[in-house]
Order: sequence, then structure tokens, then C-alpha cells
Amino acid sequence: MRAISQDTVGGPEVLKEIELPRPEPGPTEVLVRVRAAGVNPTDWKHRAGAAAMLGEPPFVLGWDVSGVVEAVGLGVSLHKPGDEVFGMLRYPGGHGAYAEYVTAPSRHFARKPANLDHVQAAALPLAALTAWQALVDTADVRPGQRVLVHAAAGGVGHLAVQIAKAHGAYVLGTARAAKHGFLRSIGVDEPIDYTTTDFAETGRDVDVVVDTIGGDYGPRSLRTLREGGVLVSLVLSRLADLGPGTARAETVLVEPDHHALTRIAELAEQGRLRAGIDTVLPLAEAAKAHARGESGRVQGKIVLTV
Amino acid sequence: MRAISQDTVGGPEVLKEIELPRPEPGPTEVLVRVRAAGVNPTDWKHRAGAAAMLGEPPFVLGWDVSGVVEAVGLGVSLHKPGDEVFGMLRYPGGHGAYAEYVTAPSRHFARKPANLDHVQAAALPLAALTAWQALVDTADVRPGQRVLVHAAAGGVGHLAVQIAKAHGAYVLGTARAAKHGFLRSIGVDEPIDYTTTDFAETGRDVDVVVDTIGGDYGPRSLRTLREGGVLVSLVLSRLADLGPGTARAETVLVEPDHHALTRIAELAEQGRLRAGIDTVLPLAEAAKAHARGESGRVQGKIVLTV
Repeated sequence: MRAISQDTVGGPEVLKEIELPRPEPGPTEVLVRVRAAGVNPTDWKHRAGAAAMLGEPPFVLGWDVSGVVEAVGLGVSLHKPGDEVFGMLRYPGGHGAYAEYVTAPSRHFARKPANLDHVQAAALPLAALTAWQALVDTADVRPGQRVLVHAAAGGVGHLAVQIAKAHGAYVLGTARAAKHGFLRSIGVDEPIDYTTTDFAETGRDVDVVVDTIGGDYGPRSLRTLREGGVLVSLVLSRLADLGPGTARAETVLVEPDHHALTRIAELAEQGRLRAGIDTVLPLAEAAKAHARGESGRVQGKIVLTV
Repeated sequence: MRAISQDTVGGPEVLKEIELPRPEPGPTEVLVRVRAAGVNPTDWKHRAGAAAMLGEPPFVLGWDVSGVVEAVGLGVSLHKPGDEVFGMLRYPGGHGAYAEYVTAPSRHFARKPANLDHVQAAALPLAALTAWQALVDTADVRPGQRVLVHAAAGGVGHLAVQIAKAHGAYVLGTARAAKHGFLRSIGVDEPIDYTTTDFAETGRDVDVVVDTIGGDYGPRSLRTLREGGVLVSLVLSRLADLGPGTARAETVLVEPDHHALTRIAELAEQGRLRAGIDTVLPLAEAAKAHARGESGRVQGKIVLTV
């Protein structure tokens, strides 16, 4: 089967098409014919050697998959050959989604939302699970709570906004003024232009902050939180010591989760959650997809078709 | 740290105590100080070379854990050091629960039921998840349905009975007459003595069969199912071709699942789910635990304390 691999870390040009044997599903695993693979910032960080979940090259990148079940291993009852599924891989040990086929445990996938095509579905898993695990599993967001999402127009941010709204929250979102129309379109109640307004001056009445930026955003965000509020950081930044009796801070890295993915699919089918798509490219142009992602001019997700 | 390993497949005597380096939790993983490790039939099948999930020895067995979080890796927000947790491992790649410490993804664990000690909690994960994934995830059991559980006094069977009852089902259970008092105590509505009664003659009105026995139990069980009913087999037996328009048959092998484990913990805390304990032995006596398990005279789970 075709796959995109790399022998060394480096720029987008290290990504090369290769042939790999088609994997076999082991017990409890599914074999999925990949139709689309989402591209995330962690992909180009790993490609460049700036992230270390995969060890040394060679490796095949890609955590986000939408596709069709080709075969199931022993003991799989959740999915059948022919089912359209989307999901998030966990590797090393295997390989990523920049390939014609992947295998993974059956509960790393859920039924693809019926109203999304493979490109739209492949844009969701990692980013939406990140937002879900931050807002629901970690912060336990409740109706009426005030949620501040940084980089609210970004890959994780715009999904966090929609998930917070689906849970009945009031959402504040930071972005440049040019993106405020987009923020309002996805449900942000109070867009904040960080170039003209210090978000830390909004008052100490925020219940949950979702921070995908890091740096001084973490410590500054703490000043917006009410007593007992939660700052969920999605970057591995050092957070200021909070002291006792005040807000808490958590750092969240995403994990595959069948239940959350199923809930995400339900929201998508209800028309309450959708990923913005910036660019769609064929698998062979993975290097171009990475270059675009790293340009910083992206509005929405980049997806490879396979 | 201490662990029980084996250099070769064979009888219980191949299990030897060794020293291993204490593992480190990677990103999204927890390091758990094991307090109790449940022993399951798959353990002694793997020890003897009759099951093949682990490849060649040496390996450390054990899928069921209850213990205390010692440390968390990057990005873990679900658990904190000091939390009491229980869970099910998925390996190879790491090692099993017959050891002082294990690492695993944070969502392979859930909070230990507060009303259970570590021995009681370690008896639950693999067997209760198996029953859950059969009854809830696969058969979608509903209030008022008729559920037939084979070997209803067995390790998975007695938990399947309790989970089916918690979902409002009417439960039929097969076991020798000597165990019918136990079956009634866990909620079986209609105990069937398989030595005197052919369960296949109960009529075609069963909605769900849970079969942990295999052999001819699968094909015979199909004759009890109503149109649209489900036979869930937990052993890898060949099922008769069902033909179109009748019942369906599924084979289920258990997977770790945070959400189901959390629901299982809730049932335990409500007093609606508890594993029977046959024998508790220290880790060093793992060989004795296996010998007892293989004797076939066990009533309930065997658990090692660590």
C-alpha cells in the first residue's frame, strides 16, 4: 500500500511516498481503508523533530482518520466491514494515517457522522477530542458557565467554542478583529480582539479557560478565573504556582476515547459541531499540506485525501 | 520492583519472581502502585501457551489492576497522585499487573469504587468489562428483555447477571443445582440446571444469550432466540451459519474502556455489582493461584495482593 514516510526529521521535503505492507488487524482491532487523514500541528512538529511521541524516524505520521472498515480482527462487534468510521490513532507500535490502510483497536473509532463526508469527518477526531477532554472530562462545563477560549478561531479553539455552546455555556473568545464574524457564526457570545483589549481585564468571573497558546497566556488567564475556576492548558507550558484555595490549572493531552467520539458524532449529526476546512490535498502532496500548515495563515483544518 | 515473570510457557511452576526496573509514565499515562491484581482464565491460558496475545516469553501476566496512582505523565488530568483507581491493561509493549508498578494510558483506569477494597476492585475490570461490552455495547440490552447467561455462577457469568439485572432484564442462568441459591442471591430469575434440563427447550423467546462456554452451546443457544435476538459469544468458537432474517451472533473480546469502567464503578457503589472472591493470595504465590484457577473448583475470582 502507499504511505507517506520520512527517514529523517526536517522540513516538509523529508516526506516521501513509499510502499508498505498492508497491516493485518489483530484481536479487537479493525483494519480501515483510509479515505481522508486530518493534518494537525502535532504532525509537523513531529516531522521536524520538535515533538517526541514517536521516537526516531522512519515513521508514518497522522493521527486523524476517516474511512471504511475493510476487515475486523477477532472479537470485534462494534464495527463491521463496510462501516464508515472516524477515529484517532494511538501509536507508536503501528503507523499513522498518511497511508491507504491503518489498524487500531475497535474503540479508537466510532461511526462516522452520517451528514459529514470523509474530509469533514477526518478534520474532527484529534481536535474535537482535545476540546472535549478539556471542557467535559476535565472542566466538567455546565450550562450558564462563562468559558474563555483562546485562539477561538483556531483548529482546537473553534471546536471548543461549539462544544462549550452545546453544553449551554456563555463563550468568550479571543481572536483578531478580522475573525470576529467567524467567531459569531460559530456561537461566540463575546469576541475579544487581543490586539486592542487585555483579556485579563474582563474581570474575575470566568469558570473555565481553554488555552491553546501557552507562554504568558496561562498565568494571565488565571487572573480571569473565579474562585474554583479551571484553566485547562493544551500546551506544555509552565503554569504559575496557584497557591491554595484559588483556581486550579490542568494540562491535557488528547487520548483516543470511543465514548467521547460517539458524543462528538452526535453533535455533528445535530448540526451543532463542524470543523472548518482550509485546504484539501491528495496524500501525495503531504509536504505541501505541511508547508501550508506551518505558514500560520490557515483558517480551519488541512485534510489529505487517500 | 518485584514482578512475576516466566521464561517459557508451561505449568504454574514456570512463574518466577524477578526484579524489573520500575516503569516511567509516558505522556497521557499513569504510573500505578499495584495493590491487587485479578487473575483470569486468560492468564493461565497465556502462561501455558494456549493463547497468543503476548508473543513469546518472557512476559509478565495480569490484566486486572487495583491500586494507587503514584505519578502521572504529561497531559493527564483524569487522575492525580494518591488517587485509588482500578482498570484493565492492554499490552504487549509493556508488562502485566503481576508487579509492584504498572503504567497505562490514563483512560484505561477509572476511580476505584469507594465501597470496595483493592481486592474486590481488582476482581472486576476484565470480567465486568467483558460482560458490559457483550450486554450493553453489543446487545444493547433493554428493560424487560429476557437474557440467558450460561455458566451464570462463573467469573464473567455472575457479573453479566448483575449487569443485566441493573438494566432491567429478566435473567435466566444455567448452572448446577448446587449453585442455584447463589444464582438467586445475585438476581437470577430463572435458574436452569443444565444437568437435568435442556436449556434449548425454553422456547424461542430469549432476546440475548451470553455464552462463555462455546462448543455446542453457541448453536444450541441460537434455538432459544427470538427473531432479531442476539447471541454474544465470549469464546472463539465457530458459530453455525445463521442464514438471513433470523438471530445474529457476535463474538466479543474485551477492550479497556474508561466510560464503561466508570459505569461499572457506579453500579458497584450503588451495591448492584460485586465480584465473588474465591481466593486471595500474595503475589509470590501466583503459581498456587494459577493451580487453583485451573482446578475448575473455583467459585468466584482469584486475586493476588501486591
